[in-house]
Amino acid sequence: MKIAVDVMGTDYGPKELVLGAVNAVKEYGCETVLVGDEKIIRELLVKYGADKNPKITIHHASEVIAMDEHPAIAVKSKKDASIVVAAGLLRNNECDALVSSGSTGAAVASALFCVGRIRGVERPAIATPIPSLKGTTVVLDSGAKVDAKPEHMVQSAIMGTVYAEKILKISQPKVGLLNIGEEETKGNEQALATYPLLKDTRTINFIGNVEGRDINKGTVDVVVCDGFVGNVVLKFGEGLAKAIMTLIKEAIMNGGILAKLGGLLIKPALKGLKKRLDPAEYGGALLLGIRAPFIICHGSSKAKAITNAIHVAMDFAEQDVVSIIKDKIAESKEMRN
Amino acid sequence: MKIAVDVMGTDYGPKELVLGAVNAVKEYGCETVLVGDEKIIRELLVKYGADKNPKITIHHASEVIAMDEHPAIAVKSKKDASIVVAAGLLRNNECDALVSSGSTGAAVASALFCVGRIRGVERPAIATPIPSLKGTTVVLDSGAKVDAKPEHMVQSAIMGTVYAEKILKISQPKVGLLNIGEEETKGNEQALATYPLLKDTRTINFIGNVEGRDINKGTVDVVVCDGFVGNVVLKFGEGLAKAIMTLIKEAIMNGGILAKLGGLLIKPALKGLKKRLDPAEYGGALLLGIRAPFIICHGSSKAKAITNAIHVAMDFAEQDVVSIIKDKIAESKEMRN
Repeated sequence: MKIAVDVMGTDYGPKELVLGAVNAVKEYGCETVLVGDEKIIRELLVKYGADKNPKITIHHASEVIAMDEHPAIAVKSKKDASIVVAAGLLRNNECDALVSSGSTGAAVASALFCVGRIRGVERPAIATPIPSLKGTTVVLDSGAKVDAKPEHMVQSAIMGTVYAEKILKISQPKVGLLNIGEEETKGNEQALATYPLLKDTRTINFIGNVEGRDINKGTVDVVVCDGFVGNVVLKFGEGLAKAIMTLIKEAIMNGGILAKLGGLLIKPALKGLKKRLDPAEYGGALLLGIRAPFIICHGSSKAKAITNAIHVAMDFAEQDVVSIIKDKIAESKEMRN
Repeated sequence: MKIAVDVMGTDYGPKELVLGAVNAVKEYGCETVLVGDEKIIRELLVKYGADKNPKITIHHASEVIAMDEHPAIAVKSKKDASIVVAAGLLRNNECDALVSSGSTGAAVASALFCVGRIRGVERPAIATPIPSLKGTTVVLDSGAKVDAKPEHMVQSAIMGTVYAEKILKISQPKVGLLNIGEEETKGNEQALATYPLLKDTRTINFIGNVEGRDINKGTVDVVVCDGFVGNVVLKFGEGLAKAIMTLIKEAIMNGGILAKLGGLLIKPALKGLKKRLDPAEYGGALLLGIRAPFIICHGSSKAKAITNAIHVAMDFAEQDVVSIIKDKIAESKEMRN
């Protein structure tokens, strides 16, 4: 199993990506090919004592796509950008999966132009796992396609079902449509048009509309929404969780000596919780609908998140999620015809 | 100052509404007219020792609109529904403001049909204040109008600016458009079309796009979005905050004797924080764009939230927010012509 890692274009620079990959090779026994500036990568490998590891190779790429570049234009003009080169390796079966944590837009564009969609899939979707009171809920699409058509949302539901079954190991995962009320008659034009299509899709276990508050409750396993809504919601959740934690810390630190002591005493108990809520533990989001396993990590991912992402990428490839999505999409098209 | 309170159709029944109103009269010296089933209200007033208070009157309404009824149909067919009767009092200047915590859809429909829009306002918007690391951010629209047109979003920005100035007492409030990236070129069709209009609106202090994570950061004072997105985001935030608190409590309770002791010690310090994060403290959302002050509370509001909502309603009326919105909307139309 060989995982390509695009180590360029991230918030903290290549060092976190290289270290994360080195640790994944040690921990999970996979091979990895690091794509980016050869000189920088080699220096980092020496630093981490991994330059002689035969399981780690370097594939040079001379260009980088920055976070603020226009994704499609950059991917088309920068032929030697690390994400484009890495996607080329994936297309040519020179690796089994790809992990990226640069610009999400550039990752999606590279996936579309260089790797291609699964036959029958109209638009890819980003599936992001988030913690719920019952375990994990996957939200998709979280940003691959804004202004999604109802048909795209149905395909998201099918792909999200495969994700929940194969990666989260949930049997017959429940699917909900993110909306402003539970009733079938509630919602915007997009939701109103999507509801009956989801109801008619027999390859999924659609239970109806869910509201924002259901996401963390774990009412369903798969939450389907448009890429705009999904992106806004997930970034909001990130910010809110951080804000609550900051406010709690502040309150304890300003609460006098007893509160501070209390803070110390609860620390060990909260450690497990912190781990559970940490996005780094989830190892990135899966770009579903592409012909090969493609993982998109947060731009601010540190080494641990990359190591976990590589583990998820291995699972993504081993479980053959791509072939199953292909079959399920074909099956649902046949049923409709 | 007389505030009408629709006491029917809420999650916890009329008792919380009546108690909240009784307390508001005591605390803020206002008058109140309680709209709903006379017998029930009278019994509750006796129970709370307020049946002889000359500042509290009852206005009987024989019908109720339930949470799951179709708002527009119910408002048109149930002429004696409490929310319709209360909106009639507001239209006829028999009260200065209205507080409701029944079905949001029915409240918006009653406001539109019975009270009417401010001249020049195309769609009302629900403005919901939420706590941020810097103070309070107002998000609008949080559910009055899904599938908003760019022009509606601009009016939300103008009305939200008035809210931030008059109710939150922020001078020259910063306005941001909720989007999936900071760049002007990012977003769905709606956001892309709204951005240049906001940029050209000289009566507001538009600083550009903001992302989900900016809402609680307090990057801006006014966050403008479509009613669908706003509703989903706010309900998600509510659920997430609750989930985090539940998980923290669980972790402390399961963390052994020292963690439990720590939990006790931090409790007083967290009390102030709990108050700050409690939606009840904010006293409901303002329905802006309607010809008279109209407050919409959460269906699960308890007495304290209602008391606070009545206080906000008094401020809404005293600050003459309605007239200021009327002037600002007219001013921005003139500038465009």
